[in-house]
Amino acid sequence: MIKAGVLGATGYAGQQLVSILTNHPEAEIAFVSSNSYAGEKFSDIYPQFYQICDQTLLSTEEAENAICDVDVVFTALPNGLSFDIAKKAMAAGKKMIDFSADYRLDDASVYEDWYKTKHGARELLSEKVYGLPELWRNQIKGARLIANPGCYTTASILAVSALVREDGLIDTGHIIIDAKSGITGSGRKKDVSLLYSEAGESVKAYGIAHHRHTPEIEQEVSKVAGKNIMVQFTPHLMPMKRGIFATIYADLNKNVTEDDIYDVLGNAYGDEKFIRIRRGMCESRFVVGTNYCDLSARVDERTHRVIISSCIDNMIKGAAGQAVQNMNIICGLDEGEGLSGLTIVAP
Amino acid sequence: MIKAGVLGATGYAGQQLVSILTNHPEAEIAFVSSNSYAGEKFSDIYPQFYQICDQTLLSTEEAENAICDVDVVFTALPNGLSFDIAKKAMAAGKKMIDFSADYRLDDASVYEDWYKTKHGARELLSEKVYGLPELWRNQIKGARLIANPGCYTTASILAVSALVREDGLIDTGHIIIDAKSGITGSGRKKDVSLLYSEAGESVKAYGIAHHRHTPEIEQEVSKVAGKNIMVQFTPHLMPMKRGIFATIYADLNKNVTEDDIYDVLGNAYGDEKFIRIRRGMCESRFVVGTNYCDLSARVDERTHRVIISSCIDNMIKGAAGQAVQNMNIICGLDEGEGLSGLTIVAP
Amino acid sequence: MIKAGVLGATGYAGQQLVSILTNHPEAEIAFVSSNSYAGEKFSDIYPQFYQICDQTLLSTEEAENAICDVDVVFTALPNGLSFDIAKKAMAAGKKMIDFSADYRLDDASVYEDWYKTKHGARELLSEKVYGLPELWRNQIKGARLIANPGCYTTASILAVSALVREDGLIDTGHIIIDAKSGITGSGRKKDVSLLYSEAGESVKAYGIAHHRHTPEIEQEVSKVAGKNIMVQFTPHLMPMKRGIFATIYADLNKNVTEDDIYDVLGNAYGDEKFIRIRRGMCESRFVVGTNYCDLSARVDERTHRVIISSCIDNMIKGAAGQAVQNMNIICGLDEGEGLSGLTIVAP
Amino acid sequence: MIKAGVLGATGYAGQQLVSILTNHPEAEIAFVSSNSYAGEKFSDIYPQFYQICDQTLLSTEEAENAICDVDVVFTALPNGLSFDIAKKAMAAGKKMIDFSADYRLDDASVYEDWYKTKHGARELLSEKVYGLPELWRNQIKGARLIANPGCYTTASILAVSALVREDGLIDTGHIIIDAKSGITGSGRKKDVSLLYSEAGESVKAYGIAHHRHTPEIEQEVSKVAGKNIMVQFTPHLMPMKRGIFATIYADLNKNVTEDDIYDVLGNAYGDEKFIRIRRGMCESRFVVGTNYCDLSARVDERTHRVIISSCIDNMIKGAAGQAVQNMNIICGLDEGEGLSGLTIVAP
Repeated sequence: MIKAGVLGATGYAGQQLVSILTNHPEAEIAFVSSNSYAGEKFSDIYPQFYQICDQTLLSTEEAENAICDVDVVFTALPNGLSFDIAKKAMAAGKKMIDFSADYRLDDASVYEDWYKTKHGARELLSEKVYGLPELWRNQIKGARLIANPGCYTTASILAVSALVREDGLIDTGHIIIDAKSGITGSGRKKDVSLLYSEAGESVKAYGIAHHRHTPEIEQEVSKVAGKNIMVQFTPHLMPMKRGIFATIYADLNKNVTEDDIYDVLGNAYGDEKFIRIRRGMCESRFVVGTNYCDLSARVDERTHRVIISSCIDNMIKGAAGQAVQNMNIICGLDEGEGLSGLTIVAP
Repeated sequence: MIKAGVLGATGYAGQQLVSILTNHPEAEIAFVSSNSYAGEKFSDIYPQFYQICDQTLLSTEEAENAICDVDVVFTALPNGLSFDIAKKAMAAGKKMIDFSADYRLDDASVYEDWYKTKHGARELLSEKVYGLPELWRNQIKGARLIANPGCYTTASILAVSALVREDGLIDTGHIIIDAKSGITGSGRKKDVSLLYSEAGESVKAYGIAHHRHTPEIEQEVSKVAGKNIMVQFTPHLMPMKRGIFATIYADLNKNVTEDDIYDVLGNAYGDEKFIRIRRGMCESRFVVGTNYCDLSARVDERTHRVIISSCIDNMIKGAAGQAVQNMNIICGLDEGEGLSGLTIVAP
Repeated sequence: MIKAGVLGATGYAGQQLVSILTNHPEAEIAFVSSNSYAGEKFSDIYPQFYQICDQTLLSTEEAENAICDVDVVFTALPNGLSFDIAKKAMAAGKKMIDFSADYRLDDASVYEDWYKTKHGARELLSEKVYGLPELWRNQIKGARLIANPGCYTTASILAVSALVREDGLIDTGHIIIDAKSGITGSGRKKDVSLLYSEAGESVKAYGIAHHRHTPEIEQEVSKVAGKNIMVQFTPHLMPMKRGIFATIYADLNKNVTEDDIYDVLGNAYGDEKFIRIRRGMCESRFVVGTNYCDLSARVDERTHRVIISSCIDNMIKGAAGQAVQNMNIICGLDEGEGLSGLTIVAP
Repeated sequence: MIKAGVLGATGYAGQQLVSILTNHPEAEIAFVSSNSYAGEKFSDIYPQFYQICDQTLLSTEEAENAICDVDVVFTALPNGLSFDIAKKAMAAGKKMIDFSADYRLDDASVYEDWYKTKHGARELLSEKVYGLPELWRNQIKGARLIANPGCYTTASILAVSALVREDGLIDTGHIIIDAKSGITGSGRKKDVSLLYSEAGESVKAYGIAHHRHTPEIEQEVSKVAGKNIMVQFTPHLMPMKRGIFATIYADLNKNVTEDDIYDVLGNAYGDEKFIRIRRGMCESRFVVGTNYCDLSARVDERTHRVIISSCIDNMIKGAAGQAVQNMNIICGLDEGEGLSGLTIVAP
């Protein structure tokens, strides 16, 4: 039985992790912690969990001390707060899966540029692995420190990678990612703009040209392509709780058909347990409540473009589900353990 | 042209008032004020109003000084903050329409009991008028200080009053009001429970047995009935922005038919411009965006009960629309001026 | 491994059943059928299930022939369509769990009265058991034919039963059930009133004084009380997909406190796996995605009434989850098998 | 007083037109018609309009006969149904404003290609005017037949036109329009995919590479640019009732700043009553309930792209509001008559 510690359990990603771990046949939650709610019961903050997870929330300090008693440390904290914890976890010989952006960027100066924060654990960047199993499974296997990808990035990278790994298929200078997210993606913040009465029944774009997931996407697809790629990434908030729908546009360099693109997707992910390639169109609700990434493709013969749709549940494949997938890999379990049986929530 | 000052313009009721006054043919907004956003433009807080109302928000203090330049003062402030303003407005010979609970209860001790606040202007209670035109139009005509009713109370009182004014029609000991409100009813508060991700797709009750609108409903229906009446009032939050749907249950003392009840409603409100008596069923969306109160009735012959459905838009007939209706009356205008042309928002 | 056949798999309750059975460790789906979509894949109708349940939907006729190969027949068909199937299933020695109203009412004439349909299998009414395990677990154990309760009824009966079984606690002549349901409760019907553009952001009541769940509630609570009870039941549609919130009002005969009422609830359901008694208030989202019924109580000392809040997921505890709970009981499995691990969907 | 006839009054665009005309100071509704609901009252179909518009719906045949009694004929019918009506209206010397696609495309063969319908009134194409006042006001002034633009097209054309009219500003070979619409955009259809329980809380793309608004956008922006332009247009459905948010991507040919782009927008629309150029970001809710098109711009200096956000209310500026704007122009009224006072619906 894997003992897991969850720091930052009361954010949306954190609570989703608690939900998944609660039902994981090979893992148990050793502790949950919260900066804001230390001393309260987890189920007082999320009454959904009453009689399911009534553990008392530790303070971050208490949680740091409890690291020695666990096998895997999950940190679902705001950016910039997990540097010391990672050092402690590594020193104690633990495995750590971090949900923040702190270890996602290979180059600390890029991190500091986009996040306006000094990187406090540069020495760990060389050994961390970017935790997208469908791209880096082999590296993840032996890793101690996993940088768990962001939600927008997971949906975007999985789609774009399949295209750029095919030499010369698309013009890598014109990749546009128009992404639509549910409101949980903005976190559990006391922010007027996130109120039901404000965010409901409306759509907005934000962070145009400046969203921090951009360098993360570019880093990963550049690695896959073997050359530097810039992408245009624009996030939008949709009036729904969960789910990401990314629409990706790329100019085709060759005369290819829709079937060809499906072959490309099949080559990339045909054997993947958590990627479903759909001939029909994606809808974000089809993946809500699951660890799937759904992909579909259309070719516009008039404009010589390919348009990929990519959908995930932002809190599962975009956060907690992927983290558990990573845990399963680094702990030698079946990759889908505790994830395949997530209840389909339809409608 | 009536000059109107709006204190507390950036709350939900306040901004609705700005919207209505902007289109009112006989009124103009002299100033808007806000405790939280003084110095900013109204349209920076509500970008909907860009190029429509770009006035700079005064502080409450500046607003109090500006009272002398207006004809009507609207106070859409939290409870307990309009005592001094009312005294100043009265002293300056102005008319005032207050959106809070501060002047709604005839008895200051009842106010202090339910609101846990000392009443700071008891001397004004004898002259204030409860601003429900369908009940107290004649008194409103000559009033200087209007206590504008609450949203739950408007929907509830209009329905119950029609029943209790008919001598012996119902058992006044068993009146149950189960009310459902949109989330704007809880205000523009930085409160986690009001986030889209929390309040969406869910229903809850709150304030059971203790909601502060209870004594207000009881006061008004008791006046109409000519005897003391207690009601069971339970509010619920619905996952929608606007609208109130109140379901009212009363035991019948007599053998009456549905037609009889519709006669009772017709007697009470047949000539009212803003009450629509429906044979078909009410739905809250039918009144959203308007100043109407829709009423429909069903009789259960098996159980000898009457069930009334009552719907309003909580921010219009439940706040700003009714306030303008009151302004029209006290200023000698047509009661529907600026209110009849509210755009139907369907769907 | 229990072999289950699902007739009517493409309705909302049916697909929820498919979801639960797919993850049930002791059951497997032998066939799925659909009147409307026979010959298509289940996952073509519900693309959520792609790669999870891609079985071809049988016609009802094919399904009836396939009954002999299964252990348990689930019928999630419209009212009036399962009479012959039940006879066949009984003749073949199978167990059957029916989701419709066809076997819920003990008295066929009451059924015919409220459902305006001739009852086609009166001979089965004496042996069917009303499948509410928290009330009738012992009878369910040996049953062949289970009448699976409706969604409103489950939420209502569980709450009211606890009150009426305590002799003289409440005035049984004044029980009012004001119930609020998500829109899936109205089924997957091509009905303009159920469109997003119509049903969204609005509340309505329907079936006042005439809803067909009324006699079912009255039958069950009367059995528990040992005397005939009439209830006032009013259903409402809320702008949300899932969940029921029932607000139950009853006049107290005695001077009791809130603690006393919690003792009453504890006596009734303290040991129940799927009933959570909450000191805090219920919200429908707390149970969405689970098989729980959450109950909370408030006493109004001013009015001498008790108000119970009761919440379920209409498709799980109100349909498919309860059906699986019944299957577990009649098949000798642990009652929670396949139900405890339903993922908490929060938010 | 302008007499207006509304054919197809019970679709979503039609009812919005009824709402606006009801409050128009210079117009009155002579008749409303409906293919599906002839003989019923308009307010029976849209109970919102009870006591506001209780007119009996004519059949289309009756409506055609009534054309002679009106000044302006509005046809809000499905594509392909207004050919004969237009001929009759023209013959009778009436003005007609058509909501369908029937007269939007200059070239009948393009129409027939994309709409798979034979064009039944080719002779009228030379005199019709595309009713986008901000582009073709002068032509609209003298027109008898107005092709009222579609909703996606209005939002898209207004944004793209401003860019392409500046010679050499953008690479016209790489214009991508990623548009998000509320669900009313799909009409009042008995379609399972539009049910609240299906369309709520989810996002999907549709009509990728094949949506019929594409040639309409291309035709208009090509006219403005003076050369043939192809665009990539992808529509999405959002879980909200009203509103369109279009995100437009274009590669910049020159080194320009955000200020430069705002100058471009200002040059194009600085004097327009119904276009608001925003420095802050657009949100679809800011225009809901109004006839505005809101535009904002961002320049990505890293990628040398401009991203324009364009928002309208699909039923107002995207249909009925624009139709009334056109009516005002062709009838010599102030262009904003009956449109400026639309109530801001915030939130």
